[in-house]
Amino acid sequence: MVAGTDPRDFMKDLPQSRSGRLLHNELGRRWPADPDHLATIVRYALLPAGKLLRPIMTLESAEAVGGHPDSVLPAALSMEYIHVATLVHDDIIDADELRRGRPAVPVAFGTPAAIVAGDQLIFTAFASLTECHAAGVPADRVVAATDALATAGADLCRGQLLESQLVDDPDSGVAAYLEVARLKTGALFRAVCQVGALLGGADATRAGQLANYGEQLGIAFQIRDDLLAYEASTATIGKPTTSDLANGRPTLPVLLAYETSPPATRAELTSALHRHSTDPATHRRVHDILRATRALERAREQAGDHARQARDQLHTLPDSASRDVLTAIARWATAQSR
Amino acid sequence: MVAGTDPRDFMKDLPQSRSGRLLHNELGRRWPADPDHLATIVRYALLPAGKLLRPIMTLESAEAVGGHPDSVLPAALSMEYIHVATLVHDDIIDADELRRGRPAVPVAFGTPAAIVAGDQLIFTAFASLTECHAAGVPADRVVAATDALATAGADLCRGQLLESQLVDDPDSGVAAYLEVARLKTGALFRAVCQVGALLGGADATRAGQLANYGEQLGIAFQIRDDLLAYEASTATIGKPTTSDLANGRPTLPVLLAYETSPPATRAELTSALHRHSTDPATHRRVHDILRATRALERAREQAGDHARQARDQLHTLPDSASRDVLTAIARWATAQSR
Repeated sequence: MVAGTDPRDFMKDLPQSRSGRLLHNELGRRWPADPDHLATIVRYALLPAGKLLRPIMTLESAEAVGGHPDSVLPAALSMEYIHVATLVHDDIIDADELRRGRPAVPVAFGTPAAIVAGDQLIFTAFASLTECHAAGVPADRVVAATDALATAGADLCRGQLLESQLVDDPDSGVAAYLEVARLKTGALFRAVCQVGALLGGADATRAGQLANYGEQLGIAFQIRDDLLAYEASTATIGKPTTSDLANGRPTLPVLLAYETSPPATRAELTSALHRHSTDPATHRRVHDILRATRALERAREQAGDHARQARDQLHTLPDSASRDVLTAIARWATAQSR
Repeated sequence: MVAGTDPRDFMKDLPQSRSGRLLHNELGRRWPADPDHLATIVRYALLPAGKLLRPIMTLESAEAVGGHPDSVLPAALSMEYIHVATLVHDDIIDADELRRGRPAVPVAFGTPAAIVAGDQLIFTAFASLTECHAAGVPADRVVAATDALATAGADLCRGQLLESQLVDDPDSGVAAYLEVARLKTGALFRAVCQVGALLGGADATRAGQLANYGEQLGIAFQIRDDLLAYEASTATIGKPTTSDLANGRPTLPVLLAYETSPPATRAELTSALHRHSTDPATHRRVHDILRATRALERAREQAGDHARQARDQLHTLPDSASRDVLTAIARWATAQSR
């Protein structure tokens, strides 16, 4: 279906896919303009929706193993609720003022309301997931899916806190970075696919394959996101789009450069992180080091490895349009960063 | 068993009851001193445990309908996790510095870590609840219990936000106060008992009775808590222990006094709320108004009504030690405030 087209076009069209439209309609139906103040805040956080990548993947994972999207739809929404809850709480933690081009929830409604709205989204995610039982999914599968989502949420929290501990520390190393990526991003993508597979009727082996697909894809996405900051900034050199550097956050390119640099260069990188610098000269110097050490290429290769491992999990799935969608998403994960 | 003793002694001894000891041991086992930073924060929030009133009520509700505590224990812990998560997030929202006589989590570990730790507790609550299936509870009961807990959590969030909207506004009235009490406190107590009953094997009628017991008890508890502030302050008049007044929060005694006061007195109460006053003269004057309007007595009567409605739900339960415990808890809810 879509596997042969340019992965970038595919991703742009994804919200207009059948899964995407199903999710858009259901979100609008469930979160109407409402006089309840909390529902208004939650609606603001959810709509207009983003790419809906996670819930689309839940639906496609379910269909890829023979499930029906109608009975899995409430669980797919749960994935968006959890994702948006983490964005709302992250925007408090990082003091980010903009999200999707509008004032972030804490800016628009205040920190207390943002805390409560994020909590509400988490609770609503679990309430929504249980609806799949009434929609025809056997109860034991709903329990297994609940456990998968709850475990992923707990991992995600561990990843967030671990990441904050690595700030300013390029000695933390590539392994710690990958662990953060696995927990912070990989865990939810893992659950997104695992839940879809479990609710769609997959056996343990198949559900495990789709779980692994999600986890590897999530890690590839995280590397890709972290690369984009440096690639955008390379195009317009000196412009400090590398907010990770300004936040003292050592991402994969910097960590790879650090690993293979002599002590004097290491000291420069450490100092750049410590200063939380937004100074163009510092950014140019970091870019020079990344170029000299081939760090961006090497980070891209690692993203490619994880995306390939994700795709490998799909080989034994029967041919279907849904498998093609999942394959195309994995291809997109690396196409974007080239 | 305990129904004949002084309800205050009963409550003091509750943590040493069989249910209490079971929960204490299990919490200590599940949250050992741990090198993981997030687990350390969560452990700090959970231990040493408070009265464990909510998880004890889950176990007793399960046993009151013939269930076995071992298979319900993980769900009982879930109730403590959700309760503590709301305390941790509340301490950020209210900027409270002390909790259980120690620095509150946001003070001890910072706001970002407190947000993440609260989220982690919510996710862990749902993961823990699903364990009941492996412990022998049929999957459809676990799904129903998950829905009850998730719905209660969402209600709780609505109650928190609704409460914040009523600040400074004595015109909001008694009905809005009771709605906040039902959502903010009643909803979790409702789920606490409903989940225990569902997992313990209750039919729909019985589970509904225990749910109603919990909700009415929760409302009684909330009124009692709000009364304590003014009663403590009556004993040592002029000492501003009435932080609700200082926060502009109109609680039941003030709302009842306001309802039956002439315009000039209403203006005084409104002004006292608006000024967020900690001034002893203002507090003395508010106390005088509460006395003149019999507001404390009338609030006590309302707490008593809700506690009685709670106890009434237990009448058709078969005789058991667990029913006695639930009865004694409802008695304690009003004994404390006399």
